[in-house]
Amino acid sequence: MGDKKTVHLDFHNMMADSIGPEHGITEEELKGLEPLASQYVKELKDERIQGKLPFLDLPYNQDIVVQILETVDFIKEKFKNLVVLGIGGSALGNIAIHTALNHSFHNLLTDRERNGFPRIFIHDNIDPDGFSHLLDIIKPHETLFNFTTKSGTTVETMSQFLILIRLLRNKLGNGYKDHIITITDSERGTLRAITEREGFQSFSIPAGVGGRYSVLTPVGLFSAAMSGVDIGALLDGAAWVDKACQSDNIWENPALMGAALYFLSHAGKNKNLLIMMSYSSALRGAADWFCQLWAESLGKKFSVSKEIIHTGSTPVKAIGVTDQHSQLQLYMEGPYDKVITFWKIERFINTVPIINKEDAVESGLEYLQGHSLNDLIETEFEGTRLALTEQKRPNCTITLDELSAFTLGQLFYLFELQTAYAGKFYKVNTFDQPGVEAGKINTLALLGKKEFEQRKTEITVQLQKKKEGYRISCGN
Amino acid sequence: MGDKKTVHLDFHNMMADSIGPEHGITEEELKGLEPLASQYVKELKDERIQGKLPFLDLPYNQDIVVQILETVDFIKEKFKNLVVLGIGGSALGNIAIHTALNHSFHNLLTDRERNGFPRIFIHDNIDPDGFSHLLDIIKPHETLFNFTTKSGTTVETMSQFLILIRLLRNKLGNGYKDHIITITDSERGTLRAITEREGFQSFSIPAGVGGRYSVLTPVGLFSAAMSGVDIGALLDGAAWVDKACQSDNIWENPALMGAALYFLSHAGKNKNLLIMMSYSSALRGAADWFCQLWAESLGKKFSVSKEIIHTGSTPVKAIGVTDQHSQLQLYMEGPYDKVITFWKIERFINTVPIINKEDAVESGLEYLQGHSLNDLIETEFEGTRLALTEQKRPNCTITLDELSAFTLGQLFYLFELQTAYAGKFYKVNTFDQPGVEAGKINTLALLGKKEFEQRKTEITVQLQKKKEGYRISCGN
Repeated sequence: MGDKKTVHLDFHNMMADSIGPEHGITEEELKGLEPLASQYVKELKDERIQGKLPFLDLPYNQDIVVQILETVDFIKEKFKNLVVLGIGGSALGNIAIHTALNHSFHNLLTDRERNGFPRIFIHDNIDPDGFSHLLDIIKPHETLFNFTTKSGTTVETMSQFLILIRLLRNKLGNGYKDHIITITDSERGTLRAITEREGFQSFSIPAGVGGRYSVLTPVGLFSAAMSGVDIGALLDGAAWVDKACQSDNIWENPALMGAALYFLSHAGKNKNLLIMMSYSSALRGAADWFCQLWAESLGKKFSVSKEIIHTGSTPVKAIGVTDQHSQLQLYMEGPYDKVITFWKIERFINTVPIINKEDAVESGLEYLQGHSLNDLIETEFEGTRLALTEQKRPNCTITLDELSAFTLGQLFYLFELQTAYAGKFYKVNTFDQPGVEAGKINTLALLGKKEFEQRKTEITVQLQKKKEGYRISCGN
Repeated sequence: MGDKKTVHLDFHNMMADSIGPEHGITEEELKGLEPLASQYVKELKDERIQGKLPFLDLPYNQDIVVQILETVDFIKEKFKNLVVLGIGGSALGNIAIHTALNHSFHNLLTDRERNGFPRIFIHDNIDPDGFSHLLDIIKPHETLFNFTTKSGTTVETMSQFLILIRLLRNKLGNGYKDHIITITDSERGTLRAITEREGFQSFSIPAGVGGRYSVLTPVGLFSAAMSGVDIGALLDGAAWVDKACQSDNIWENPALMGAALYFLSHAGKNKNLLIMMSYSSALRGAADWFCQLWAESLGKKFSVSKEIIHTGSTPVKAIGVTDQHSQLQLYMEGPYDKVITFWKIERFINTVPIINKEDAVESGLEYLQGHSLNDLIETEFEGTRLALTEQKRPNCTITLDELSAFTLGQLFYLFELQTAYAGKFYKVNTFDQPGVEAGKINTLALLGKKEFEQRKTEITVQLQKKKEGYRISCGN
């Protein structure tokens, strides 16, 4: 086990020892949580055994890896482009994997530099200009379209489906079907019905796995494999963390400790902001993925016992060192309403020397002699962490020994499990999202969907009631 | 004036009329601020006349437009790539313009589709892998490097400068100088000294304009012009808003009203989060630009009268419709700690029909007949705004009649002015950033810069003091 590259949680600067008791957590506070924490681990284990948490068993589904790799082997060289159409949990995991593990300029590499894998476009919005631009740069006959929707009815993805099906039929005639692959529920939904009728290639999303917990299903794995990512290693990393997080002792289970620390900082110390500051540009997608996971799982009106609680801290992505020149002023001097989690990579793949020790250097830049960008990002991280700590700003650090499919798989599973534990601390249903229904119904009503006619009338009245005042224009 | 495309602020749903007095603002509260607001307008006008706020006069610097366009005309066809090296205020404005006004896949277009303008890379981090990837895909002899640092000493940018100068000299010999253009202070700093000695092409940043207020100087304008953006129209838009925001009456000055609303929501209603949710993918860069502007200007420990206040709300970017599937659950049901500002484009450039009224459509998708992506994004915006309003979540909307250089220039100036007014309400120095110094000094000390030797010793002691405990690894 000793030589495996893994993930570490350092929470020294969350503690009162380091930043004082006003903003820091005491050992006593953590000890006070131990019985509950231990109980929550047992509850989750029971729920898992009862089959209620199938996302926890995804790392062991090696069959899907084999199936996906077979499909990819068969089709990858046929296409110059893979376009993934999905939104929310059907895109954020894909983007996370793509930005973390592929070349930063994957789509600008030559076919050979991409080892024959296609260019990857993950398109998660319906902005008409953005969509139109996508159509400008891909030729349908060179392109595989991957439509992903768990429910099979997501309005954004199904709209894109209708547009692209028409385009493909017009351009390619009967051969169009070979340019489509769907990922959706195995039985329910419009997209499944169409897939079965038309005979599209398809993968299923395992039952009971919610969108934001689906990165380790075909949702995330297919597009990853289509760009050459080692998807077996992603699952292995997740399985590794599963084993590392079995203890019901908070001091020996990093996912449990992470959940407890965030909960105590929010509930006990009034920190409603969770800043995820990645000292790696490549992890920006993983940070966005985390922001959905945390916000949608814990941002709830009701507790499990139906009390009104309006809870949930707000996750915010930041990028080191970039945001030292943007957000750091606020983190250093603003209100004490934030917990900062640094994400750090111990060893980058590339070493980029700035200037050799023996070379002449411009006056004023002598201190850079003998240093590399690697030293620079490391010292900026240490310098910033120390400065925040001296201002008594609670912070912890997730360190990846290196960034690879194996450690990224670890990170996914660690955060998913931590969020599940956090749901217990917050006493919410971690796996639903009732709050988004109202907006969806309004949209469908406004579009004229039959069953919402009554709602359409109500909305129209609402919108007309709106005062003409309370509006100021620039010059008109 | 009537036919100019412009920008509008609709704050109906910030008001108690719409969402009730617990979370909404009453007319009386706004009226109570009127005398102060009026005074602040006068103060800013006085400071402007005294030359203390030169960023407010940038829209009228048409000379710089002429100079930049002359330079661009002369050099643009010589280069396939423009690489901008800068960070914070030396990158965020550039990215904002590039994402808003250029094709979403600018760098994947052919030379002809780009009208002979180069590919644009704005590189604002020192991640060694990201930097290495950049060098993989650009050839030095085809590339112009634009180094931007206001102080001329920014460690990240000067490190990149040292690396790239070595590369260029090695590859291109004496001709390397033609591949460099610097944008920095007209007199001070290492980069200015080198520029003068070597005879690099260069533009100056006007004295007294801080990084986060510099988008309408050569910092933002040069790279914009190098991709064909109408930089004259950017300045015209800014000037337009300057004229539209002269009134000291809060009800007639959108920048002043915006500042007052955000301030009252934070100070009076405890909303410490300012969500900027853009229903346009193209405005994501502008949202990041705003986040620096707001956070760094208002996130302050001291008031102007030196009281300790630790103030500043936290700006957060969100993207509609994408984040309806990620953050909306939290916005709908979580704590009442947020103000949401929608950014909306009234008319997109492209219209993308989903399915014609007369065409056959899959069962279950009939409601999409006759609609376009334009209708869909519009109704999703309306549906979401209404749902949030019904949950008494304060929200306002910035509408752009269309997205163009003229309206983007308006948006920049509107938010800069609003932030300056907000600084008055918050009683802070809007234009400094003392909080970032400590981290910078730590970094320089750790790198071994001579004048910080004492600090290096202190840091080393600090880092060694750190307990071995409070760290949990996944399996090692």
